[in-house]
Amino acid sequence: MTDRIDVVGIGNALVDVLSHQTHEFLAAQELTPGAMTLIDTERAESLYAAMGPAVEISGGSAANTLVGVASFGGRAAFVGRVADDELGRVFGHDIRAAGVDFRAKPASGGQPSGRSLIIVTPDAQRTMNTYLGAAAQLGPSDVDHELVARAQVLYLEGYLWDEPDAKAAFRLAARTAHDAGNRVAFTLSDAFCVDRHRDEFMELVESEVDVLFANEAEITSLYEVDEFDDALQRVQHHCEIAALTRSERGAVVVARDEVHVVDAHPVAAVVDTTGAGDQFAAGFLFGLTHGYHLGTAARLGALAASEVIGHLGARPGVSLADLAAPVLSD
Amino acid sequence: MTDRIDVVGIGNALVDVLSHQTHEFLAAQELTPGAMTLIDTERAESLYAAMGPAVEISGGSAANTLVGVASFGGRAAFVGRVADDELGRVFGHDIRAAGVDFRAKPASGGQPSGRSLIIVTPDAQRTMNTYLGAAAQLGPSDVDHELVARAQVLYLEGYLWDEPDAKAAFRLAARTAHDAGNRVAFTLSDAFCVDRHRDEFMELVESEVDVLFANEAEITSLYEVDEFDDALQRVQHHCEIAALTRSERGAVVVARDEVHVVDAHPVAAVVDTTGAGDQFAAGFLFGLTHGYHLGTAARLGALAASEVIGHLGARPGVSLADLAAPVLSD
Repeated sequence: MTDRIDVVGIGNALVDVLSHQTHEFLAAQELTPGAMTLIDTERAESLYAAMGPAVEISGGSAANTLVGVASFGGRAAFVGRVADDELGRVFGHDIRAAGVDFRAKPASGGQPSGRSLIIVTPDAQRTMNTYLGAAAQLGPSDVDHELVARAQVLYLEGYLWDEPDAKAAFRLAARTAHDAGNRVAFTLSDAFCVDRHRDEFMELVESEVDVLFANEAEITSLYEVDEFDDALQRVQHHCEIAALTRSERGAVVVARDEVHVVDAHPVAAVVDTTGAGDQFAAGFLFGLTHGYHLGTAARLGALAASEVIGHLGARPGVSLADLAAPVLSD
Repeated sequence: MTDRIDVVGIGNALVDVLSHQTHEFLAAQELTPGAMTLIDTERAESLYAAMGPAVEISGGSAANTLVGVASFGGRAAFVGRVADDELGRVFGHDIRAAGVDFRAKPASGGQPSGRSLIIVTPDAQRTMNTYLGAAAQLGPSDVDHELVARAQVLYLEGYLWDEPDAKAAFRLAARTAHDAGNRVAFTLSDAFCVDRHRDEFMELVESEVDVLFANEAEITSLYEVDEFDDALQRVQHHCEIAALTRSERGAVVVARDEVHVVDAHPVAAVVDTTGAGDQFAAGFLFGLTHGYHLGTAARLGALAASEVIGHLGARPGVSLADLAAPVLSD
């Protein structure tokens, strides 16, 4: 085997199209505040026409996490599908420029590169409307097994479950990772996504997932309970490590025989919240793959999350390695 | 004649591709700090490959100004050329969403939509590398004479002078504006642009231009003098109104029989400077076309400039009409 890498991720390759709008706009467009909704071409066009001036920034949940891992100094790779068009080139440029190994050849013909039309409301919340396009055509043949086998952790996003071929790619990659003795990490992605796939996610968490990432809404949705603590009792028996984030209330990490309760890192001004989960996962995975104990890994996650919510866009604005240096030298 | 509009602009339709880099990066890429350089396809590709992760925001100097005029509540239109591709759609969406009348049909075939690869250094300065693409193919047939005749002011950018067909479009539009009894406004755009076209710009300023916009570097380059005041003495005899900006030292407006010296508007933190000139022109043109006297027009310009340099991107981040309300109620 050639060089080991730390984390390889598989997810939707998306460019975010961000626009500031009011809650009245959400209501007029019949959008559910804070949710990620999948939209078709026609809806993408009508919503884009109604949106104000926007900014384009590379995104995609798992892709953002891998960029964060690279920013900490980790060796990261990403597998996702883009078309041979300008947004595809933007996605490829940005993720490679961030230091992530991204080798996918853009697909010719077929659908255009995926994009997420994101409304940022004055409360710093994101409402996402994703046109998957080429990203949705990810399938088993896109999985680079040699790459997956080389990575300490395979990181998969719940959003993949929305498309049958992507689901097959997910299962195949998980098998390769386990056969090579590596860990499989999984994020539940979004409470509405959990709602769409609850039974299958439950089975995944029990049988395939070694490291689970979820926020409070997602984990309580998974177990259909009202209280965070009830979900905590359930998940503790289901996978090796669960890293559960609770926004300003910090994070709880449970493993078979240890638990860590870590505070959120203070933030001067919250500008745009959603990258928080992606970057928490980045910090945690960097820590996990670099021999830090789970409490330190969670603190790195909280640090990365606090950086990303201070600016627009879901990828780090500064070097997370520099930001983490004081924490790691303690 | 149907409805009057305030300002119609003709310029390069560009999407900005912004990346934060160090001065060492500029040196390694042999870029002149602060300049706008025209680049070809090959150079655009090699520079983009070397650049870090970027953000895409609609730009184009004159286009930014028209967006500013609309943000003040003015009736604004823009003429520029994009291709039938994603960056062209982004440009069209953003300028229309900002309230500017933009009717150009995207050109099929030919070159892709223009973009400016912009390096923002830690001193908040922009170094621009523009691949004009479809924007450079603007010619006389793109000029909408009915639209030009309807506008109180025709606003043209010096950058158009870099392409022969755009130059012809410029002259034709200026004739239509003057025949309709309207004013022709012109920005020198960039000191290096002035250097490329000094004699022709001088002739333009003397014979065609009613309202001239220039910053200190541009106006001293035009007259090849060292001192701002020397340039001021020259320009005063050459066009009806000259609005000269001097960064943190404010602006000087000279007309045949009046002069105004206006201070820069205070700014908390300068993030990205170049939109300053574009937005000064927006405020000034809004004031001029709404019956305010020249001193007030210059103050509106200074206000708009101070807003735009406080954030990334060369278009207003807030409603300039709201920002201007206290100034205009004095």
